[in-house]
Amino acid sequence: MLENWIKKPLVTLLSDFGDRDVYVAVMKGVIAQINPKLGVVDLTHQIPPQNIAAARFCLMNAYPYFPEGTVHIAVVDPEVGSQRRAIAVKLASGFLVGPDNGIFSGVLAQTPAITVVELTNSRYWRIPQPSKTFHGRDIFAPVGAHLASGVLIQQLGDEIDPTSLVQMKLENCTQTETGWSGCIQYIDYFGNLVSNIPGDYTQNKKWYVQVGDLIIPGCNTYSEVQTGEALALIGSHGWVEIAVNSGNAQSQLQINLQDPIEVISLN
Amino acid sequence: MLENWIKKPLVTLLSDFGDRDVYVAVMKGVIAQINPKLGVVDLTHQIPPQNIAAARFCLMNAYPYFPEGTVHIAVVDPEVGSQRRAIAVKLASGFLVGPDNGIFSGVLAQTPAITVVELTNSRYWRIPQPSKTFHGRDIFAPVGAHLASGVLIQQLGDEIDPTSLVQMKLENCTQTETGWSGCIQYIDYFGNLVSNIPGDYTQNKKWYVQVGDLIIPGCNTYSEVQTGEALALIGSHGWVEIAVNSGNAQSQLQINLQDPIEVISLN
Amino acid sequence: MLENWIKKPLVTLLSDFGDRDVYVAVMKGVIAQINPKLGVVDLTHQIPPQNIAAARFCLMNAYPYFPEGTVHIAVVDPEVGSQRRAIAVKLASGFLVGPDNGIFSGVLAQTPAITVVELTNSRYWRIPQPSKTFHGRDIFAPVGAHLASGVLIQQLGDEIDPTSLVQMKLENCTQTETGWSGCIQYIDYFGNLVSNIPGDYTQNKKWYVQVGDLIIPGCNTYSEVQTGEALALIGSHGWVEIAVNSGNAQSQLQINLQDPIEVISLN
Repeated sequence: MLENWIKKPLVTLLSDFGDRDVYVAVMKGVIAQINPKLGVVDLTHQIPPQNIAAARFCLMNAYPYFPEGTVHIAVVDPEVGSQRRAIAVKLASGFLVGPDNGIFSGVLAQTPAITVVELTNSRYWRIPQPSKTFHGRDIFAPVGAHLASGVLIQQLGDEIDPTSLVQMKLENCTQTETGWSGCIQYIDYFGNLVSNIPGDYTQNKKWYVQVGDLIIPGCNTYSEVQTGEALALIGSHGWVEIAVNSGNAQSQLQINLQDPIEVISLN
Repeated sequence: MLENWIKKPLVTLLSDFGDRDVYVAVMKGVIAQINPKLGVVDLTHQIPPQNIAAARFCLMNAYPYFPEGTVHIAVVDPEVGSQRRAIAVKLASGFLVGPDNGIFSGVLAQTPAITVVELTNSRYWRIPQPSKTFHGRDIFAPVGAHLASGVLIQQLGDEIDPTSLVQMKLENCTQTETGWSGCIQYIDYFGNLVSNIPGDYTQNKKWYVQVGDLIIPGCNTYSEVQTGEALALIGSHGWVEIAVNSGNAQSQLQINLQDPIEVISLN
Repeated sequence: MLENWIKKPLVTLLSDFGDRDVYVAVMKGVIAQINPKLGVVDLTHQIPPQNIAAARFCLMNAYPYFPEGTVHIAVVDPEVGSQRRAIAVKLASGFLVGPDNGIFSGVLAQTPAITVVELTNSRYWRIPQPSKTFHGRDIFAPVGAHLASGVLIQQLGDEIDPTSLVQMKLENCTQTETGWSGCIQYIDYFGNLVSNIPGDYTQNKKWYVQVGDLIIPGCNTYSEVQTGEALALIGSHGWVEIAVNSGNAQSQLQINLQDPIEVISLN
């Protein structure tokens, strides 16, 4: 626990709460009541309402950049108040706290769970009878604050089998005769279309992307095409993505979430 | 003051400044110039421009979740530059700093003022001649930072009578023969319609809500109705609210701010 | 370096990344991996995509309010991946880190550069082979965190001539026979139209503003005109700006960025 204090552990928050209301601030108040010295970083609160797939994508892409010991609290929770489990997960380099609905399946595909517990010990909740609509405030924020302050994960509830966690079904990317086949898994604020095909498949190759009848050249930088033209490149999160130089690929190309794409390599 | 440092006091910020401009950041810079070790939490900066009622609601609902000694700075201030008073309020468990325009009347209805001062001592302002349009930067942020750092409220200006503070006139909720009558006082980001009827009136009862000709069942959780159907429940802030399972009640039911609602109990 | 720790240096972040994705959070994670005790303040992430002029304006207006030693990281970077230089600048009271594309020219017009380096020392980057699309994460955030933690600017790369930095061409404001002539350089969240004419030109004078055929009275406060009427005043950042009392000047007056305005003084 002393070591934790020296390192100043961080808590991150991810939700679909938006920024108009005080829901996020209330979670920060609850965390500060438990340990005012914790640092808190917002991953994003603009996840489309109840969109577990977008939350899974964002968490998976942010996770690797945080310090060892960081506790990630994720609250996109359409089944709150039902029998879905509330969980905490210990990984080699951090912790996850939130509902068992597939939101953590992206991180867990990259780094295995060491310990998983169901959050049954109400001693670490804000109150013994939590609200039926806001477990972020009453369970996840206080449990995350205690974990970041040195409480052992085993104290938070009953250990459960990591293989019992809810998986999110995503269309996988698969190898084809000429390259790889996948789909658009996320569209960012700039309208960039992020596929589920990892960029390392394209290394040291010449390649292009096909979406329907559209052929888009594989590039290294935006400046390889003219302003207003489409290109494919390896985005900053490491996935093959489709962009438009100084433009919005989503609106210009009329490509949407889940649309299939092919990466075709020329050598 | 030593005790304050050990506890790491918090400052919160609430405004209608939005997040496009640097107004909020400038307040944080001013706070850090006075005391870089203060924690700062944003309640929200998306209050509709000059909407004191929404600010009052947000502050009232966030206040109880913050640690003892937290200083809440609220800047929704349509009369800035006029003769409206600038005030600081000491409560049993925290402080309020902002304009005397009713913005604090929600918190003060729940927890009484111990001391109220008008902010007349320019020694605690950023500059002796503050801007006529941005008291958040020149008066409220520096005064709040000093308060959180241990300055006594009595040093900030002349003590005034708590009963002289501006009240916000809200249609009250009143008891009827069959239950309670009130109105919609806030609509959140999800389109949930929050009434001004406290949820504890419904405890241990079967109940429903009537809005115009519409009858909406009183429920405990979203899952008691089908996807797309309306329900009434006790929201996370403790008020009776109207929602739609996996939908937006405001747009689907065409109910607006100030619309009257009835809670009718069946036993 | 000890002094830095006592003062708790701050890092600020400015970008056009928006708040939907995790790009900003990833930069904060990278900063916390280097020094978890640094305070981080968001200036704004709602700069219109690739709009260097808006970023320059926001940074210039926020800069004076931050404590000595603050490191400002600015990432509006349309030429990322090209040969544009990455730089750090030491000023009398703080530091700037970002692309050499004119984004710092507003601050530098107010306070001269003491030292400028090109960021060529990859030892202070996140990885030796940075992404071609996200220097915010791989170069600017880690370099800024090291600077704020006490690394000397000379260690970050080769010193370059301050006069070689890219300038942003803005239509200047010029003196006329009757006052000053300039243009709208920024439109804020409230629809206020901020000119590039400093407010001190109007001191102790009666004045008005002319835009096309429109005459707008120079005022001290909003309340000098009726609700819904236009006024000109010295905004909180110190520039002559055009507003509408309780309204949106941009939409009501149909005035846009770069439109010319005249300040005419009567004495």
